[in-house]
Amino acid sequence: MDALKSGSDVFFVLIGAILVFAMHAGFAFLEVGTVRKKNQVNALVKIITDFAVSTLAYFFIGYTVAYGVSFLGSARDISGGAEGFAANGFTLVKFFFLMTFAAAVPAIISGGIAERAKFNPQLIATALFVGLVYPFFEGMVWGDRLGFQAGMTNLFGAPFHDFAGSIVVHAMGGWLALGAVILLGARHGHYKPNGAVVGIPPSNIPFLALGSWILCIGWFGFNVMSAQDVAGASGLVAVNSLLAMVGGILSAFIVGRNDPGFVHNGALAGLVAICAGSDIMHPLGALVTGAIAGVIFVKAYLYTQNKLKIDDVLGVWPLHGLCGLWGGIAAGIFGLESLWGLGGVSIAAQVTGSLLGATIGGLFGFIIYGGLKKWVGIRLSQEDEFTGADLSIHKISAYPEDDYGPR
Amino acid sequence: MDALKSGSDVFFVLIGAILVFAMHAGFAFLEVGTVRKKNQVNALVKIITDFAVSTLAYFFIGYTVAYGVSFLGSARDISGGAEGFAANGFTLVKFFFLMTFAAAVPAIISGGIAERAKFNPQLIATALFVGLVYPFFEGMVWGDRLGFQAGMTNLFGAPFHDFAGSIVVHAMGGWLALGAVILLGARHGHYKPNGAVVGIPPSNIPFLALGSWILCIGWFGFNVMSAQDVAGASGLVAVNSLLAMVGGILSAFIVGRNDPGFVHNGALAGLVAICAGSDIMHPLGALVTGAIAGVIFVKAYLYTQNKLKIDDVLGVWPLHGLCGLWGGIAAGIFGLESLWGLGGVSIAAQVTGSLLGATIGGLFGFIIYGGLKKWVGIRLSQEDEFTGADLSIHKISAYPEDDYGPR
Amino acid sequence: MDALKSGSDVFFVLIGAILVFAMHAGFAFLEVGTVRKKNQVNALVKIITDFAVSTLAYFFIGYTVAYGVSFLGSARDISGGAEGFAANGFTLVKFFFLMTFAAAVPAIISGGIAERAKFNPQLIATALFVGLVYPFFEGMVWGDRLGFQAGMTNLFGAPFHDFAGSIVVHAMGGWLALGAVILLGARHGHYKPNGAVVGIPPSNIPFLALGSWILCIGWFGFNVMSAQDVAGASGLVAVNSLLAMVGGILSAFIVGRNDPGFVHNGALAGLVAICAGSDIMHPLGALVTGAIAGVIFVKAYLYTQNKLKIDDVLGVWPLHGLCGLWGGIAAGIFGLESLWGLGGVSIAAQVTGSLLGATIGGLFGFIIYGGLKKWVGIRLSQEDEFTGADLSIHKISAYPEDDYGPR
Repeated sequence: MDALKSGSDVFFVLIGAILVFAMHAGFAFLEVGTVRKKNQVNALVKIITDFAVSTLAYFFIGYTVAYGVSFLGSARDISGGAEGFAANGFTLVKFFFLMTFAAAVPAIISGGIAERAKFNPQLIATALFVGLVYPFFEGMVWGDRLGFQAGMTNLFGAPFHDFAGSIVVHAMGGWLALGAVILLGARHGHYKPNGAVVGIPPSNIPFLALGSWILCIGWFGFNVMSAQDVAGASGLVAVNSLLAMVGGILSAFIVGRNDPGFVHNGALAGLVAICAGSDIMHPLGALVTGAIAGVIFVKAYLYTQNKLKIDDVLGVWPLHGLCGLWGGIAAGIFGLESLWGLGGVSIAAQVTGSLLGATIGGLFGFIIYGGLKKWVGIRLSQEDEFTGADLSIHKISAYPEDDYGPR
Repeated sequence: MDALKSGSDVFFVLIGAILVFAMHAGFAFLEVGTVRKKNQVNALVKIITDFAVSTLAYFFIGYTVAYGVSFLGSARDISGGAEGFAANGFTLVKFFFLMTFAAAVPAIISGGIAERAKFNPQLIATALFVGLVYPFFEGMVWGDRLGFQAGMTNLFGAPFHDFAGSIVVHAMGGWLALGAVILLGARHGHYKPNGAVVGIPPSNIPFLALGSWILCIGWFGFNVMSAQDVAGASGLVAVNSLLAMVGGILSAFIVGRNDPGFVHNGALAGLVAICAGSDIMHPLGALVTGAIAGVIFVKAYLYTQNKLKIDDVLGVWPLHGLCGLWGGIAAGIFGLESLWGLGGVSIAAQVTGSLLGATIGGLFGFIIYGGLKKWVGIRLSQEDEFTGADLSIHKISAYPEDDYGPR
Repeated sequence: MDALKSGSDVFFVLIGAILVFAMHAGFAFLEVGTVRKKNQVNALVKIITDFAVSTLAYFFIGYTVAYGVSFLGSARDISGGAEGFAANGFTLVKFFFLMTFAAAVPAIISGGIAERAKFNPQLIATALFVGLVYPFFEGMVWGDRLGFQAGMTNLFGAPFHDFAGSIVVHAMGGWLALGAVILLGARHGHYKPNGAVVGIPPSNIPFLALGSWILCIGWFGFNVMSAQDVAGASGLVAVNSLLAMVGGILSAFIVGRNDPGFVHNGALAGLVAICAGSDIMHPLGALVTGAIAGVIFVKAYLYTQNKLKIDDVLGVWPLHGLCGLWGGIAAGIFGLESLWGLGGVSIAAQVTGSLLGATIGGLFGFIIYGGLKKWVGIRLSQEDEFTGADLSIHKISAYPEDDYGPR
C-alpha cells in the first residue's frame, strides 16, 4: 500500500515532467514556424541546448537555491535513503518536474530574441537565470524561503497564490525577455528610418501551429501535476485549463480576425493566465480569464510591434509577461467565493506578488543582458544576421538538400 | 486510501482526456497534409476553433443533455461538494474526457468539407452537433436516457454495446459529414462535365503521416480510458486496439498498393472499427476486424471519389461512417464467446443500434446543413475557392515568407 | 484495493507502451528529415509497416520465444482467467510494452538502409528479427531462458544488468543493421571511384529535430516503465535518463560544432547509453555516461561515413550499436557503489553480456541479409534508386501537389 502510494506519486509527477518536457518541443516549433527560414535551425538548436544548460544549472545550483536540497550524495541516499528525500526517488522526479518549469524561462526568452542574437552569450544568460534568478523567486513563493509567504499572510491575510506559475514561470520569463529584446534592438530592416514598419512574414504556419498544439497538450501536465501528489489530482484544474484555453482561442480568433498566428497564440495566452488560479476558480471564471488574456495578447502584440517598436519576434512579453501578470491578478478576482471560486485568496496579495515577480524579471533582464552586451556582445554582426543564424552559426540551412538545386 | 483511489481515477481519466485532446492536432495535420497548400491554414484554424466552440457547446448544453448534470454551481460544489459530483473534481475530468470525444465530430466533418466550405456557418453546425445531436444519441447509449438500453435488453437480451464509440462518435461523425459533403458539392475542377475525374493531389505526405501518427497514439487513450476508472484499466482493450490498427495498416498496405495515404488511413480505419468491441473481443478478432476495416476504407474511398463522385476530401464517410458502422456490427460477431470473445453481446442489438446511430447522423447532417445552405450559405464563392481558403478567409498563406520571393 | 493495484499497474505499463509506440513516429521523422526528399514517403511507409509486421511476429512467435507464454486462448483466459495471466489483462499490456521495444529493432535498421533498400525483403527481415533473433536474446536476459542469468551470476557474482535495453534493444538493433548496411553497399554517387566522399545533404532539419524530440519524450516511458510495476516507479531512472540525454546534447554540441544533426542525435546517444544502468547509477554517472556517448556518436559517425566508407545513412550503428555497447559496459562502472551507484553489478558480467548481444546482432545481421541478398535481392535497381524509393515503390512523391507545377 505504501509502495503503491509512493510509486503512484512518482508516476503522477513523472507524467507531468514528461508533458512539460514535451512543451519544449512546442517552444521550438512555435519559433521555427514564426521566424524566417534562415533562422529555423538556430531556433531548434537554441531550444534543445538551452534545455541542457538549464538542466545542469538547476541540478547543481537552482534547485538548492529554491528548496535547500542538494543531490550530491549517493544514489541510495538521494532516491529515498537519506533524510529529506522521499521513497521511490520522488524527490528526484519532483526535481525533474520543476526543472522543466525552470527551463521554460530561457525557452520563453528565445522567442523574443530570435533572428539576431548570438548563441553562446545566450547560454550564459540561461545558466544565470535558471541557476539563480528564477529559483530565487521560486523559492520565495513555492519553497518557503525568506519568510515571503508568511509575510504576505501577515500583511494581506493570505499568501501569494500562484498554483502553477503564471508569475513564477511566465511573467518571470516574459519580463526577463523584455530587457533582452530592448537591449538587442530590432531586426535589421523591420523599422525604417522614416518610421514605417516593414512586416517580416513568418515562414511556416503549420510548424507554428504544431508548436502551439504541443504546448497546449503539455500544459495540462504543467497545471494538473502541479499538485505534486496523485491524491491531489484535480479535475477542476484540468477543466479550468481547458476553458481558459478555449477563451483565449475564441477571443483571439475574433479580435485577431481569423489570423492563424493569433488563434494559436491565443490558446497559449489563456493557458498562461490560468496557471496561477486554476485550482481555485470556477470554470466560468477561467473562461473569462482566458478570453481577456487572448485580447491582451493580440492588442499588446500589435502595440509592441507597431507603436512601441519593440521587436519581440514571437510576442513573448505580451504572451508570457502581460498575460502572466494578468493571470496572477485574476487568481485574486475569480478565486473569490463570491465569484464561485474556492476562496482563501487576497486580491492585494495577488497584485503585490505579481508585480514583484514582474519587477524582478524586468530588472534582472536588463542587468544580465546589459552586462553581457557590454562584456561579450549579444547581437550577431549585420552580415551574419543577413545571412541568417543557420548558416552563420550552424553552417547548415534548414533544408540543405534544396541548397543544391534540382536533383 | 480513498484519496489515492479518487486521485488515481482523476489521473487515469485525465490522461485519456489529454490523449484524445492531442488527437485533435492529429485531425488538423491529417487535413493539412491532404488538402492543397492554399487551404492548409484554414484546416488548422478550423480544427482549433471548432474545438473551442465544441467545448462551450458541450459544457453549457451537451453534457447536460447526455448525462443530466450541469456545472452551473460553485467550484466547491461541482468539484465534489454537491450531490452528483464525485471527489477530486472527477465529474469535471470526466466531462473533459467526453468533451474531447464530442469535439471529434466536427473534426471528422472538417476533413470531408475541406477546401470549399465557409468558415462561420461551420461553427454554427459544430455548436448544434456538439450541443444537441451528438449528446442526444450519446445519452441514449451511455447516459441511460430515454430507456434506450433497457429497451434494447428487452428486445434482444443484451444492451447495445459501444465501448468507446465506433457508432456514438465515429459513425455519427462520418454520417453527419455525408450530408455536408453532398450538399456542398465537389471542389471545382475535380469532376469534369464529360465525366472524367481529375485527381487533386495532396500537398504534404509527411504532415498527413504526422496527423495519422498523432491520432494513433491518442487512440489508446480514447479506448483504454473509456473504462473511466483506473480499476477498470484493461490490457485487453489496449492490445485489441493495437491489433486492429495493425490489421488496418496491413490490409490497406496490400489493397492500397503501398500508397502512403491508404497505409496511414488504414491504421485509423482499424482503430475506428475496434472502438465498439475492444473490451470484449479476442485480439485475433480485433485483428480481423481491423483488417476488414482497412479494406472497407480503401475500396469505399475509391468508389466514393470515382464512381459516386462524392467529393469527400479526406474520405471521412468511408473512414468514420462505414468503418464505424462495421465496428458496431463486428462487436456483435467477435464479441461472441464462441469466437473467444467475452460474450454478453447480441448481434441483433448491434446491428440495430449501429444502424440507428448512422441514421440519426445521416438525417441530421442533411437537415442542419440543408438549413444552413438555405439561410446563410455553406460554400465559398468560386473566386474564394480558387484563391484558397487561406488567403480569402485568413488573409495569409501557410508559408508567408515564400510569398515574398527569394530573400 | 487489489483492483486499484492491478489497474494501476496496467495504467503504468500502458503509458510506457504508448510512449514507446510514439517513439516509432520519432524514428519515422528522424529518417524523413535525414534522407533526400525522394525517399521521405518510403521512410514513413517503411516504419509503420515494419511496426505492423513486428506486432504480428511478436504476438504469434516472439513473445512466446522470450517468455514462454502464448495468447492463443480465449479473451477471458488471456486477460487474467487462466494460469500465467495476471488480472486486468496485465499480461497483455506487458506484451504491448515489450512489443514496442521489439519493433524498435527494425525501426533502427530502417535508418541505416535508407534510400536504396527494397521494400518487401525488409519486411521478411523484420519478421525474422522480431519473431526469432531479438526474443531469443531477450529471453536469455529478461525471460530467465537457457539459464543465462544463473550462469552469469555463477561466473561473475552478478547477473548481466540491462534494465531497459542498451544491449537487448539498441546494440542488437545497431549491430543487426551493420550487416545490412555493408551488404547493401553505399548509395550511388556517395563515394567516388577516386576515393572522394560526396556529401548527401539531409532534406529537412525541422523534421529531423521533430523525430529526435518525439524519441526523447517517449524514452522516459522506455526507461521508467521498464520497472513494469507502478510500485517500482523510480525517480532515479527518470533523472538519470534526463542527465544522460543532457550529457549527450552538450558533448555532441561541442564536438559536433553546433551542427543540428549532431545535437539532436547526441540526445539520443545519451539515452541509448543510459538504458542499461539507469536504475543503478547516480545522476552524475549518468551525465558522464551520456556525455561520452555523445562523443562516441559524433566521432564514430564521421569515421564510419568518411574513413570506413560504410554508408549508414542515419548513423544507426554508431548511435545504437556503439553507444548501446558503451551503455552496457557503463552500467558496470557507474553502477558501482564506490561511484555513488546502487551496486549489485559486475563489470566483467557487463562486458561479457554486452559483447554477446553485439555479437549475436552482428552475426545474424550478416546471415539474414546475406541470405535475402542471395535469394531475393535487397537493393533497388540503380534506376529506381535514382528515381527515388517514393516514386518507384509508392508511386507518389512526398509533396505531390508540387509535382504539378504552379497552381
